[in-house]
Amino acid sequence: MRMYDIILKKRNGEELTKEEIDFFVDGYTKGEIPDYQVSALLMAIFFNKMTKRETADLTMAMVNSGETIDLSEIQGIKVDKHSTGGVGDKTTLVLAPMVAACGVPVAKMSGRGLGHTGGTIDKLESIKGFSVEMTKKQFIENVNRIKMAVGGQTADLAPADKKLYALRDVTATVDNVSLIASSIMSKKIAAGADAIVLDVKTGTGAFMKTLDDSFELAQEMVDIGTNVGRNTIAVISDMDQPLGYAVGNALEVKEAVETLKGKGPEDLLELCIVLGTQMLLLAGRANTEEEARKMLQETITSGSAYEKFKEFVKAQGGDVSVIEDLELLPKAQHIIEVKADREGYITKIIADQIGISALILGAGRETKESPIDPAVGIIIKEKVGSYVKKGDVIAYLYANDLNKAKISEQKLLEAYHIEEQKLEERPLIFGIVTKDGIKRF
Amino acid sequence: MRMYDIILKKRNGEELTKEEIDFFVDGYTKGEIPDYQVSALLMAIFFNKMTKRETADLTMAMVNSGETIDLSEIQGIKVDKHSTGGVGDKTTLVLAPMVAACGVPVAKMSGRGLGHTGGTIDKLESIKGFSVEMTKKQFIENVNRIKMAVGGQTADLAPADKKLYALRDVTATVDNVSLIASSIMSKKIAAGADAIVLDVKTGTGAFMKTLDDSFELAQEMVDIGTNVGRNTIAVISDMDQPLGYAVGNALEVKEAVETLKGKGPEDLLELCIVLGTQMLLLAGRANTEEEARKMLQETITSGSAYEKFKEFVKAQGGDVSVIEDLELLPKAQHIIEVKADREGYITKIIADQIGISALILGAGRETKESPIDPAVGIIIKEKVGSYVKKGDVIAYLYANDLNKAKISEQKLLEAYHIEEQKLEERPLIFGIVTKDGIKRF
Repeated sequence: MRMYDIILKKRNGEELTKEEIDFFVDGYTKGEIPDYQVSALLMAIFFNKMTKRETADLTMAMVNSGETIDLSEIQGIKVDKHSTGGVGDKTTLVLAPMVAACGVPVAKMSGRGLGHTGGTIDKLESIKGFSVEMTKKQFIENVNRIKMAVGGQTADLAPADKKLYALRDVTATVDNVSLIASSIMSKKIAAGADAIVLDVKTGTGAFMKTLDDSFELAQEMVDIGTNVGRNTIAVISDMDQPLGYAVGNALEVKEAVETLKGKGPEDLLELCIVLGTQMLLLAGRANTEEEARKMLQETITSGSAYEKFKEFVKAQGGDVSVIEDLELLPKAQHIIEVKADREGYITKIIADQIGISALILGAGRETKESPIDPAVGIIIKEKVGSYVKKGDVIAYLYANDLNKAKISEQKLLEAYHIEEQKLEERPLIFGIVTKDGIKRF
Repeated sequence: MRMYDIILKKRNGEELTKEEIDFFVDGYTKGEIPDYQVSALLMAIFFNKMTKRETADLTMAMVNSGETIDLSEIQGIKVDKHSTGGVGDKTTLVLAPMVAACGVPVAKMSGRGLGHTGGTIDKLESIKGFSVEMTKKQFIENVNRIKMAVGGQTADLAPADKKLYALRDVTATVDNVSLIASSIMSKKIAAGADAIVLDVKTGTGAFMKTLDDSFELAQEMVDIGTNVGRNTIAVISDMDQPLGYAVGNALEVKEAVETLKGKGPEDLLELCIVLGTQMLLLAGRANTEEEARKMLQETITSGSAYEKFKEFVKAQGGDVSVIEDLELLPKAQHIIEVKADREGYITKIIADQIGISALILGAGRETKESPIDPAVGIIIKEKVGSYVKKGDVIAYLYANDLNKAKISEQKLLEAYHIEEQKLEERPLIFGIVTKDGIKRF
């Protein structure tokens, strides 16, 4: 088998066999096939696409390129949740304890963020003492005992994906739906979940800007999961403005805890209930959506989700008093009001730019080595649909550096679209994709 | 300017600017842009094509990537001839002295062959003493004095093309008409010709197998020449069987000399007259095709082309007695009859396979370093259209190694298509492409 022939075949619009896909993924991972041949193949894939079968084979080839995590010692059906990424997305912090409180095991491997704000681990580390350092045995014991653990991603999961992604990133071959879908799914499958719930974001702050593209990506990932025997469901949710009000690590922990106590933003809680419903259904913990919804809502009203979160924080070395008194979380020195620069309806808050605004304050990493300042971030006051006058406060910057705050403020103002006409309200959830098809709301 | 943006632009179907093309060709030649980005761009070009303007800009960027030869000291309009390559193609050996005998300067830079048989220089080196080693001054003096010289390609012409071609060769991005055309034209333009006559081969033994593809390539090259101010004309000629009867270095020299003496194959002479006619017209030496044809035919009947060839061989150190007595050319030890393995009409002689058959005997190079055996090769006896009985001799192998001859014979038999039905005769010349359009015959 020769890489040249594989490139030629795909270039000519033919379908690659499983053997050919394995050959190129394996050869590339081992460094036997050079970058320049792989980038030519990726561009040919961009133009000629991949079939569902090829995409599933590519996914499994990437899974098999490295280690896979064996979660079989955990009792019950392990359902993982993955978000395609958004700004202010603290869903895991709320959703995981809700689902765990329903008795469904949540064994979460998480990464540190290399985005505008930190990842789930960075957020949790705002809590004094909290750590993801533990042995695999401890991790599994925690999940079996309290139904929830968040571990750092130490294993070498899907190294082929890592290498391919880096190449796609510099050769303008990122935005192909098969390549995006297989990249995400390979990591989820390698992480050992039995079933997967995907939160596919759509809108200006999402990777997929249009609804059609978002549904296509969702369908592709659900098809991969189905093809490789992992039950997969995707929820399409809005990212035309940040989720909730808080953007930044400690600020998001605070908002998450408030949500667990029933005092959080409606959109965040609703998204957690929608995603949690699918998780409970996949885990076989509930039989109907109504039943699942009710169980999840009950975890908030009864306080069981909040208690579960404290149990989890304690189990991983965190100082529970910080959760009980949120004033103990790291605090920024300055809180700066950001005021509307004109009058009108807020029609859009470009979430990407809010993310950049938070990054400038120090909430995220510019490079892998950059430190994160857990205290800084943004609290949004006015969201899409509000009517504001010039000079009204629309957001607060939590800053430790006034010079950075000035630049951040400018970015934040650019993110706000204020117009004369109110736009039609966007729903929070646009639809659900399962192996049986697409349900648009 | 970033290479990433250039790839993305072409991938999205947009036209690249001259600055963008210069940036990538220059950066790649200097090693500042990596192979993997260039191969992604080449694949995007394969799918989204290049406009005439982009192709002309790419050609000139490759010309400007290295040295260019200044032929201004040669008197008159310098017309170069280039063939896209065929088997048994000894055209230059006949055409150059014919044109030179008409008073038109032929300053030919030639390469050694890395094909099935040797290149023009390898063929000429079958003549004892002949050499292409000379200073630029000698080269120009020879052309001015006897109107003809063949030099080795020592200058670093179009290094960008060399690098790009090597990359295309391993990434399945060779067969795009803009890339093929700019590759050929960049070398011709860098070699300093004022005008160019292209012999675009078509058929099973040619790079372009179909007539439409051959006309498209011809049109593309004529457009490039026109765009960059070099008068260019392309002739589309048949390569569905070898040209003439001889394949192999000394054997081809013999056939060429016989042709110059008026005793060669008709197809070879006719092709030389057709190509020569265009050269004389471009050089301003004749005003009509009829006039040019007559002048060229006259060089054969008068013996002036033959005398010119001898003059040329002598000027470059060759032993003229070899030309006068062709028995003095290197001779193979064995002449082996190849007999038809069935009865019928010869409908096709796959020229590529005849080439491989000659290569096996030692007539060509397998690698850059391989030596060439000037004596070996093939003399075809029966060509397309002949009716043969089983056991009739169809060709002769000239061999120095009987083991190799056995393998070669097998290849040769595979090249011959012998069928019950005679096929319609293919013309030698299919058409001419000039800047004014396509003329199909």
